[in-house]
Amino acid sequence: MMSELPKVAHLAAGRSLVQWVLEAASAVEPTSTVVVVGHGSEMVAPMLPEHVQTAIQEVQLGTGHATRAALDVLDLEDDDVVIVLYGDMPLLSKDLVRDLAELGGQFSARLLTSVLEDPTGYGRVIRDASGSVVGVVEERDCSEEQRSIREVNAGVYAFRAGPLIGALAEVSNDNRQGEYYLTDVVGILVSKGDRLQAVNASPQEVMGINSQDQLAQAGKELRRRINAELMESGVWMLDPERTYIDESVVVEPGARIYPGVHLEGSTTVAAGATVGPDVFAVDSIIGPGATVWYSVLRSAVVGEACQVGPFASLRDGTVMEKGSKIGTFVETKNTSLGEDAKASHQAYLGDATIGARTNIGAGTITCNYDGVNKHPTEIGDDAFIGSDTMLVAPLRIGNRATTGAGSVITQDVSDGSLAVERSSQQEIPGYAETREKRKAAKQAED
Amino acid sequence: MMSELPKVAHLAAGRSLVQWVLEAASAVEPTSTVVVVGHGSEMVAPMLPEHVQTAIQEVQLGTGHATRAALDVLDLEDDDVVIVLYGDMPLLSKDLVRDLAELGGQFSARLLTSVLEDPTGYGRVIRDASGSVVGVVEERDCSEEQRSIREVNAGVYAFRAGPLIGALAEVSNDNRQGEYYLTDVVGILVSKGDRLQAVNASPQEVMGINSQDQLAQAGKELRRRINAELMESGVWMLDPERTYIDESVVVEPGARIYPGVHLEGSTTVAAGATVGPDVFAVDSIIGPGATVWYSVLRSAVVGEACQVGPFASLRDGTVMEKGSKIGTFVETKNTSLGEDAKASHQAYLGDATIGARTNIGAGTITCNYDGVNKHPTEIGDDAFIGSDTMLVAPLRIGNRATTGAGSVITQDVSDGSLAVERSSQQEIPGYAETREKRKAAKQAED
Amino acid sequence: MMSELPKVAHLAAGRSLVQWVLEAASAVEPTSTVVVVGHGSEMVAPMLPEHVQTAIQEVQLGTGHATRAALDVLDLEDDDVVIVLYGDMPLLSKDLVRDLAELGGQFSARLLTSVLEDPTGYGRVIRDASGSVVGVVEERDCSEEQRSIREVNAGVYAFRAGPLIGALAEVSNDNRQGEYYLTDVVGILVSKGDRLQAVNASPQEVMGINSQDQLAQAGKELRRRINAELMESGVWMLDPERTYIDESVVVEPGARIYPGVHLEGSTTVAAGATVGPDVFAVDSIIGPGATVWYSVLRSAVVGEACQVGPFASLRDGTVMEKGSKIGTFVETKNTSLGEDAKASHQAYLGDATIGARTNIGAGTITCNYDGVNKHPTEIGDDAFIGSDTMLVAPLRIGNRATTGAGSVITQDVSDGSLAVERSSQQEIPGYAETREKRKAAKQAED
Repeated sequence: MMSELPKVAHLAAGRSLVQWVLEAASAVEPTSTVVVVGHGSEMVAPMLPEHVQTAIQEVQLGTGHATRAALDVLDLEDDDVVIVLYGDMPLLSKDLVRDLAELGGQFSARLLTSVLEDPTGYGRVIRDASGSVVGVVEERDCSEEQRSIREVNAGVYAFRAGPLIGALAEVSNDNRQGEYYLTDVVGILVSKGDRLQAVNASPQEVMGINSQDQLAQAGKELRRRINAELMESGVWMLDPERTYIDESVVVEPGARIYPGVHLEGSTTVAAGATVGPDVFAVDSIIGPGATVWYSVLRSAVVGEACQVGPFASLRDGTVMEKGSKIGTFVETKNTSLGEDAKASHQAYLGDATIGARTNIGAGTITCNYDGVNKHPTEIGDDAFIGSDTMLVAPLRIGNRATTGAGSVITQDVSDGSLAVERSSQQEIPGYAETREKRKAAKQAED
Repeated sequence: MMSELPKVAHLAAGRSLVQWVLEAASAVEPTSTVVVVGHGSEMVAPMLPEHVQTAIQEVQLGTGHATRAALDVLDLEDDDVVIVLYGDMPLLSKDLVRDLAELGGQFSARLLTSVLEDPTGYGRVIRDASGSVVGVVEERDCSEEQRSIREVNAGVYAFRAGPLIGALAEVSNDNRQGEYYLTDVVGILVSKGDRLQAVNASPQEVMGINSQDQLAQAGKELRRRINAELMESGVWMLDPERTYIDESVVVEPGARIYPGVHLEGSTTVAAGATVGPDVFAVDSIIGPGATVWYSVLRSAVVGEACQVGPFASLRDGTVMEKGSKIGTFVETKNTSLGEDAKASHQAYLGDATIGARTNIGAGTITCNYDGVNKHPTEIGDDAFIGSDTMLVAPLRIGNRATTGAGSVITQDVSDGSLAVERSSQQEIPGYAETREKRKAAKQAED
Repeated sequence: MMSELPKVAHLAAGRSLVQWVLEAASAVEPTSTVVVVGHGSEMVAPMLPEHVQTAIQEVQLGTGHATRAALDVLDLEDDDVVIVLYGDMPLLSKDLVRDLAELGGQFSARLLTSVLEDPTGYGRVIRDASGSVVGVVEERDCSEEQRSIREVNAGVYAFRAGPLIGALAEVSNDNRQGEYYLTDVVGILVSKGDRLQAVNASPQEVMGINSQDQLAQAGKELRRRINAELMESGVWMLDPERTYIDESVVVEPGARIYPGVHLEGSTTVAAGATVGPDVFAVDSIIGPGATVWYSVLRSAVVGEACQVGPFASLRDGTVMEKGSKIGTFVETKNTSLGEDAKASHQAYLGDATIGARTNIGAGTITCNYDGVNKHPTEIGDDAFIGSDTMLVAPLRIGNRATTGAGSVITQDVSDGSLAVERSSQQEIPGYAETREKRKAAKQAED
């Protein structure tokens, strides 16, 4: 991956690779789940659900060695089924894991196979005339005829615990890398006359992630699945290929999502809401019938029938009550708007409580920061804040109060009052000539 | 579709599905056009062109029943050609409908067929040794051999009116759904010795829309066709797959469109204009040589060689004369800018008329709303509005007039005058210590 | 192309088509490189590197004629290798040109061939039983059997100079177009018993660009290659298909690029930087660990660990020192921010020098333009500019100085001072009634 982050800790569609695999594994409700961690285990462990155990593989001596490390943690009966998955296969589906778990009583292992365009480097799956799997031959041992087989062993298995433990004990590290390969277990079982089963998977499902390119491909496929499921439920998307919804997000049927939308974290979008184009929302709630476009939302709550954007930034602690509006070039932080309150244009509202039906004029700024501390601004219901009002916090503006355009308000304003801070307008006739002379002088100079 | 909207009323690339089908049908200039409507007809009827008749199908008793409802509305001669299309097949091309209409004189029907990867569920097309269509066998009646045929009946036909009417009368509803199937007409015609023709269509063209996923796919294909045609005419697109142009939009050759652009409604883009990245324009005009990027336009007119954005919002009634500029973080509504006028930064201009060559300073706001009414602002030619000027409407600023930065202008300003509203600057030395002490106190506290 | 620009001058992924071909040609370090130019040569010539010679083809008499024009400029030995490429094949790879140049000593020409789905219109490549190329037959001369050959001559060659010059002299213009075809050289060489070699290329690599659609396709493929290489090196991309990086841009391993990002010109992105979603950057530097999203950068320098956006516009001459911030709805031009300086909200900063740790309040505007000239603003270290301060340039604000919210500052402020321009706040009780009466009156009226 050309990255310091352990491979399985990379994210795709909002989940780490190992979390995707654990999610697939959860389909069979396993009694125990063990993740084998090596390099960077301190970055992987916090990603794991509580019920998951970890086994530390201090030195990386191959997949067989890793499997042994996992088995050490478990207390198994011979007949138990052990499913071995790779942490870098995020596209494994629940269906496939379920299928794998259906290991028949008379079989020692069930293995995932896949038919590849180019099988070079993989162990080929050998079947008899009836189609039963009778072995896996590693490429180095293949006959010319076997080499042409395109069905390969994907390295993912369900094993019967007894045979697995027995065979693992026989696996040697007598190879160029000096590693213990789990793959060798298959040959050992076959040599003992054990019977195998196979489940076919698409090459995509068993794709291991080993590069940024493959990570991007996996993300694309995971998003495709998420979006397909949402559309199936009745979510409209103009262009699902350009809609980036993490697995953790809830979008209700009847929501409409335009392209260029990123929904992350615990975000929810209610029925009848329209989101996008070009919205980034993390850990935010978008209510029924709300419209949000060309905006960024972080830990914000957009209530029913609210309007946001185009071009708004709602930061942590923004709460919009029903029917309120945060319009164009407006930024909010730790601020609530009451029902039907409006901040339609160019305002910065920080640490403010704004009452119902209050109108915030264009250019209004809550001067909440004095260079040392942040202070609150409280505005009542039905107030009218004139354009370009500076609200020097801490401050309280009463219900039905008004402020004059361009005023710097430093003292509280009573209910129903008009507060204004302004000088009188002066007019200096003939100023245009001054300006024009200056212009002429400059042009002469140039 | 998991939606309350009737299926054929869903939009793709700016047109409802049924409108796309009617557009394809228009290729043969039909004498009469009938749309059969059932559920939600009140939502469908207003979408239909005036010349289109509707037939109400009160209860949904199948495609044969629907066809009968349509025929009831028409006054047909036996030799007339009746084309039957589905309202949910927006990808049917004009060429295909034209081909369908070429029903030879000695034939009773011409049917669309398509070769599917998986024909399960469809009626198979039976051809004789010479390749002539001799029948359609429904899947339930297929022999093993017939079942392997991959050419299926797409359910789209041109019929000779007489045979159609005759055969429809014989169609029974003796099936599990209790419906009258139009498909049965084919078998009845064949059983009478009538001759059929077939026209092959791609599976895509005859795709019916039954899910949000298919709606998204259809939209993608329709946009691909629109963009291909525009590029063919000489429009440059950086990434046509990310360019969303509705069918109703006109883009002239020589225009340049970046990705993330949505053009809707009656929007037109002239030659030499550059639009995008990331522009949303509905019902707007973008003139020759204009540049618009990272902006939203609604019912706006951008004149020749104008500049808009990045980050501008032009709302209803914005009119920009040649060479004018609406720059960054500027919002306009019901406002005209004269030739070469400029509002380059952070202004809100509502209900304003701005003269030629006038410069609007950063932070200028037309205070057009007093909480009750909206008032107009008129600014002459060659005026210079200082930064952060509040223009309290109604107001008239004369030609060549100037306003001082930070002024609240409440009274008209005469031609050539400078108007200023300002107190004198005071300086309080040593204030930094106060602030720094406060900071130190806070740090001690924390 | 439906364009006035010469075809080979069109850009794809930041380079003209002819530049892409020259780049591919550079793989073999040619002794001389000649570009044959015709129509619009004055638009093509300036795009060419210095070491490239041009040959003018006054009238377009075919590819053979063009090749002769190029040979006239060169001083060749008979054994020299001449590679002939088309200026409109931007997808030719270096590997392919290298392969082409390996013309064996006993051969007169090595030609690129490609296997096409539909070979109609192309000369078919004839091979003998051993697979050796024995000729190319133009479609008009093909036997029925030859017509079914799908391997065609792509028209791209390496020639031995002597045989090429000899054969070109024999090429006639006795055809419908009256042109001299380079293709005919192949037949002439074969007729003389010369031996040919062939190199197979994918249809994509030898695609000539003849329409806007093909130009868009080529751009897509070139971007795909650029992004694949970047991901290979360790750059993370959420959606490489929506990431537009020109060939001239440098992105370091460990950078993270979201979709909707356009990087052009001499832009560089350092390791650990996060760019996007939705960023346009041209000729800009984004430093290590910096974050830039939803913003436009033109000739800007974003230092280490700086934050930009969402919604910022950084214009020419913006320089951000380490840890500084340009936040939401902030525009800068010819302005530097010292270490850890912050302009977090809604400011316009032009021609300003801002010291370390200084905080620029929301709504601050440098009034740098007086309608005639632009003037500088200098702000010291640790200053605190209050919200909505108008800084009327030329102006100097001292170190540790403060300005009061809403002040218009026209005179220099000393180190440590507070400067304020403000009237006193007035309160008019009962104003709400006035407003409410007006509202009632209006409602009565409506």
